Amino acid sequence: MAGKVVLHYFNGRGKMESIRWLLTVAEVDFDEVFLTTREQYLKLLSDGDLMFQQVPMVEMDGMKLVQTKAILNYIAEKHNLHGKDLKDKLLVNTHSEGLMDLMEMIMMLPFAADVKTKLDNIQNKAKDRYLPVFEKALSGPIYLVGGRLSCADVQLLECTLMLEEKFADILAEFPNLKSFQGRMTRIPAVSRFLQPGSKRKPQPDDVQGE
Amino acid sequence: MAGKVVLHYFNGRGKMESIRWLLTVAEVDFDEVFLTTREQYLKLLSDGDLMFQQVPMVEMDGMKLVQTKAILNYIAEKHNLHGKDLKDKLLVNTHSEGLMDLMEMIMMLPFAADVKTKLDNIQNKAKDRYLPVFEKALSGPIYLVGGRLSCADVQLLECTLMLEEKFADILAEFPNLKSFQGRMTRIPAVSRFLQPGSKRKPQPDDVQGE
Repeated sequence: MAGKVVLHYFNGRGKMESIRWLLTVAEVDFDEVFLTTREQYLKLLSDGDLMFQQVPMVEMDGMKLVQTKAILNYIAEKHNLHGKDLKDKLLVNTHSEGLMDLMEMIMMLPFAADVKTKLDNIQNKAKDRYLPVFEKALSGPIYLVGGRLSCADVQLLECTLMLEEKFADILAEFPNLKSFQGRMTRIPAVSRFLQPGSKRKPQPDDVQGE
Repeated sequence: MAGKVVLHYFNGRGKMESIRWLLTVAEVDFDEVFLTTREQYLKLLSDGDLMFQQVPMVEMDGMKLVQTKAILNYIAEKHNLHGKDLKDKLLVNTHSEGLMDLMEMIMMLPFAADVKTKLDNIQNKAKDRYLPVFEKALSGPIYLVGGRLSCADVQLLECTLMLEEKFADILAEFPNLKSFQGRMTRIPAVSRFLQPGSKRKPQPDDVQGE
């Protein structure tokens, strides 16, 4: 089981960013190999490293893991961030799937034909469909499920920060979420990840603006 | 934990069909409530039954479950169809995510602008990217992971049957998959599910053709 964890992906957020976040909170150190040429991708393919010909790919525990959600579940299970029993795990997965749906909408923005309309749609869905669920779950409890930190909390932090990049005051009506964010960002590993120079990646707009 | 399992969805495959398949193989009997009017949906909403305002919703074990993958994982865990340890579970999830990606492409076909192009694309991806992975995994073993039946096997059966509806001879080059299909369809619960009059739903094209 020796060897450092190595992430293979583009030098950007995309589907890998939630994996970076989860490894960070699990305090698992990792290296990154950025795909910048087609030759690198073809090499991974011909070496049989990409089960479904796709990245993200994560080298970990002597295996080459693919499929974002399978990777996230494995890391969460391994590091006790996946709920303590069957019912808590169900709730963690339910919250997590909702958050991944919302983050995927934001992830797809650079490919949208009409960005303004898409942004409005995301903001409406976030405020009407998603954030109220998490605001309610955090009215009292400090974590989403079962009184302990899970991958759903990590994804909620990631997601609320992404939303604030697009809609600066979106949490104004969600005080529990704002407090949650404050608590989560005081976790030392999270605090370091939020500093400039960490392995956290900028939003795609910032890159395009260069 | 009393009470029968009740599925709330449209009278069609969509995202619920994989849940119907998994319950069938787990030999869990279920009832279905079909959404046919907006009023039914609004009632579920106002009763607070849809966490993210979406179906599928499954009443089970005194809870109202939402988010397809969270529901599938819960049923799989509960009925020992999710791999016996951390690594097998990872492999089950990895295969399962690939299969869900492929089935989602087929599920989206009725909404495609250019169905012919989409169909060609699906057939190519199925033959080049997905089926070879499962064909290889089944060269020897009778199940995909760890020598025992898992939700990934159930999804593989569902997926290969869906593919054959569109591309009748697609399994000609994949003899292990064809044998696997034969074995799986001899499971009594599966055999009954494949008979006319079962809770299995027809493909959308059949419905549109009426």
